Amino acid sequence: MPSDRLDAYRARAEQALDARLPAAGLLPARLHEAMRYAVLGGGKRVRPVLAYAAGEALDAAPGQIDVPACAVEFIHAYSLIHDDLPAMDDDDLRRGRPTCHKAFDEATAILAGDALQAQAFRVLVCDPALQVDAATRLRMVDVLAQAAGSRGMVGGQAIDMAAVGHELTLAELENMHIHKTGALIRASVTLGALCQPAADEAQLQALDRYAKCIGLAFQIRDDILDVIGDTATLGKQQGADLAHNKPTYPALLGLDGARAHARALHDEAMATLEPFGERAALLRQLAAYIVDRSH
Amino acid sequence: MPSDRLDAYRARAEQALDARLPAAGLLPARLHEAMRYAVLGGGKRVRPVLAYAAGEALDAAPGQIDVPACAVEFIHAYSLIHDDLPAMDDDDLRRGRPTCHKAFDEATAILAGDALQAQAFRVLVCDPALQVDAATRLRMVDVLAQAAGSRGMVGGQAIDMAAVGHELTLAELENMHIHKTGALIRASVTLGALCQPAADEAQLQALDRYAKCIGLAFQIRDDILDVIGDTATLGKQQGADLAHNKPTYPALLGLDGARAHARALHDEAMATLEPFGERAALLRQLAAYIVDRSH
Repeated sequence: MPSDRLDAYRARAEQALDARLPAAGLLPARLHEAMRYAVLGGGKRVRPVLAYAAGEALDAAPGQIDVPACAVEFIHAYSLIHDDLPAMDDDDLRRGRPTCHKAFDEATAILAGDALQAQAFRVLVCDPALQVDAATRLRMVDVLAQAAGSRGMVGGQAIDMAAVGHELTLAELENMHIHKTGALIRASVTLGALCQPAADEAQLQALDRYAKCIGLAFQIRDDILDVIGDTATLGKQQGADLAHNKPTYPALLGLDGARAHARALHDEAMATLEPFGERAALLRQLAAYIVDRSH
Repeated sequence: MPSDRLDAYRARAEQALDARLPAAGLLPARLHEAMRYAVLGGGKRVRPVLAYAAGEALDAAPGQIDVPACAVEFIHAYSLIHDDLPAMDDDDLRRGRPTCHKAFDEATAILAGDALQAQAFRVLVCDPALQVDAATRLRMVDVLAQAAGSRGMVGGQAIDMAAVGHELTLAELENMHIHKTGALIRASVTLGALCQPAADEAQLQALDRYAKCIGLAFQIRDDILDVIGDTATLGKQQGADLAHNKPTYPALLGLDGARAHARALHDEAMATLEPFGERAALLRQLAAYIVDRSH
């Protein structure tokens, strides 16, 4: 990511995640090693950083946001483990390293993903670093459970699996991504914002619209990178979407059309941030990063 | 199960589960069909009935207990889907029907399990039938997340996978079951009990000890049935443990020794119920059922 402040939040997320994973060596050791391997393997930490940046836009304390930042990243990490399995995308490489089921084994990978999902909800309900009231914690669990579930991320993954080898319209493609990646990105922003008890519903809605736009833009960029990136920079196999015969934005809109669509979403996201003034500087940087990133 | 009242709670659980699953036909339809198939496929409903019975021992309203009863069964159902996968136990038959990945496909089964876990937490936090205060709801989520996670059910499954083909001591076998099945059985009882706001910690502890005993007794009976049952009655392959070279109680203690161990745990469970008097009648019936059941 481009700025020192984003890097600082990334490093902060890294530490927060490490502290909230079961210790290395704790029994059952192989399961806990797999959980740590999958979560602490680098990663762009887009979702945690979005949570921190949303909190910053509302003057929430970063120490509180550590908790939802970890919760959304645990969900994200578990979804990657399961998506990479042979029965799903069958990927051998993730973040430049062997995928979890390659580094360990399939059974351990399935279980590590399952345990990370439980851990996400656990930290949200009982981590003392988060000092919001019980009603807000419950709302956070609800937001995350919806975003992660069959009408959110997992539903999007199911739509994605069903779409392989089929022609999709732009609306169908967008619907898939709104669920598959958009739901958790929106939850990341909402959970960060909920760390500010004084946040009002209008602010939450504006941030949610921002998140919806950049969530789609993020996916469009992912599709573009799959065409123009190289494997070393991506940390995963270039051209994998094409190889899997997956519908993509470039396939539907062409590369230029996909870029223009991402740009329009970026601009809409920027517009929703206006009422937040300078406090939303980091959210703006993130939007720019998401549209321009090279991996 | 032996009594009309247990049957009534089973039927109640069936209805409660149906109402809390995504509707058949709701998109993505195949995912939601798989979730419904896996949850509504019969099943003994031991965990929901334990929740109802624990609530009954404390005069909690059954309408409240519907919610934790569904939450624990969603977790149980998801764990069965994932345990049956080819990379895990590779079972084709469950409850007398094809396992989820056989009836659908592996990817759908993985995702259906993932979505059921999210749904379990979702109903606990936002289902209006549960009318406890926010702090109690949070405690319920915490209890369930711990029971389901890497130091609970999933951890037990990991220990189980690692144990295949190894000799275990009785202590090691017990440790595996305390995690693999015991954690969720204990959570079922605790969550049912927490539906009574007036429950005190001594009552919760006594019920937890009951649950710990019958959880182990349940597993011992499972191991015994794997030896003496037949496939048609069990609804799954008889002799599967032996075929998988899994450590079992009968292998360690002999059939008579295993039966005696289950009986001792049953008696200890009964002793902890004494302070509850007649209100614990159903918990007593369940303990007897668990030790004597034929499937």
